[in-house]
Amino acid sequence: MEPASERTRLRRRAERGRYDRETVHAILDEALVCHVGFSVEGQPYVIPTTYARVGDLLYVHGAAASRMLRTLAGGVPVCVTVTLIDGLVLARSAFHHSMNYRSVVVLGTAIEVVDPDERRRALEAIVEHVVPGRAPDVRSPSDEELRATRVLCLALDEASAKVRTGPPLDAAADLGRRCWAGVIPLRLTAATPLADPDLAAGIAPSPEVVGYRR
Amino acid sequence: MEPASERTRLRRRAERGRYDRETVHAILDEALVCHVGFSVEGQPYVIPTTYARVGDLLYVHGAAASRMLRTLAGGVPVCVTVTLIDGLVLARSAFHHSMNYRSVVVLGTAIEVVDPDERRRALEAIVEHVVPGRAPDVRSPSDEELRATRVLCLALDEASAKVRTGPPLDAAADLGRRCWAGVIPLRLTAATPLADPDLAAGIAPSPEVVGYRR
Repeated sequence: MEPASERTRLRRRAERGRYDRETVHAILDEALVCHVGFSVEGQPYVIPTTYARVGDLLYVHGAAASRMLRTLAGGVPVCVTVTLIDGLVLARSAFHHSMNYRSVVVLGTAIEVVDPDERRRALEAIVEHVVPGRAPDVRSPSDEELRATRVLCLALDEASAKVRTGPPLDAAADLGRRCWAGVIPLRLTAATPLADPDLAAGIAPSPEVVGYRR
Repeated sequence: MEPASERTRLRRRAERGRYDRETVHAILDEALVCHVGFSVEGQPYVIPTTYARVGDLLYVHGAAASRMLRTLAGGVPVCVTVTLIDGLVLARSAFHHSMNYRSVVVLGTAIEVVDPDERRRALEAIVEHVVPGRAPDVRSPSDEELRATRVLCLALDEASAKVRTGPPLDAAADLGRRCWAGVIPLRLTAATPLADPDLAAGIAPSPEVVGYRR
């Protein structure tokens, strides 16, 4: 599949580029945070934040007073990048060390979401993105909380993914080196949930909390 | 401790800001990848890449032909952000959901490293950053590999960290809600190393590979 724009076409390592919607969506759905890039007076800033994908839209949210949200709501170019690290690729040469990863880069201009229903749906989607099944258990935002929150939306029109998998690719001349080579697989894992010290007695964590995994 | 510049001072959630060198260094040393933000013709780009900290310097590297490295070598403003996710903070209200995390934001202008010895030391530091103890086992870069690699350096002069820890902070009125609240701790864990299919017989992974952890 071809990239949506020349800006999102991978130039180097073109064989790692993926432009199909399924790959892009799967990476966005698995990661927990994105890194949002924008410029203020010529200085780039990169800020981590959580998000949700709904169809072909990406939602981010934050305090209405946040500089990032205020800047982006002004309609400036933005880049949202999501990265999953799947493993460390250990080659026999320093040069061929690498990582197995899946990343997505989205370019565009975010717009502020003003419709109250879409705002509520976006905020619920963000809770569900982080812990699927959680939203019905918790209190929904009050009007005051909604006023304090800005929601932005970025279309996934210009998105590209980059994927590296598999073992190291050493030069033939290095294959005889007496050095272990291979991949150390990595993944984000959940430990036993820690109850809030203020939790009332007799409230057990729900299955989506106890069995949490990405 | 005070921030090094007003640009790096946290405005919102100021209580999460940390400006001491120890905290900044510890986060940089634990994370595997950073997200590098820069602009090309007004469009921000955010690219994940590995790196190493040496003293008060951050090194990144890549193909000499890479657009990111070429752009940064031209002396443009850059932002390098590193994020560690420590846990999901599950509150009783959607609004107070959060994450426990440690992040570092570095602002500045990268410079290209041209001194051959510093280049070699930086590349070795990047291997050692990812897998401590690995560099002595592998073949060092050849002259040709060095020519194909660009190394950039960013001083940690303008760096700030942001740290959230602890349980959810619900409003008092929500504490009676019959809903589990607490933290799901997360960490990046290594699975059993996978040997390269081309690995010669009788080569076992070294202790730093078998016992790998961040």
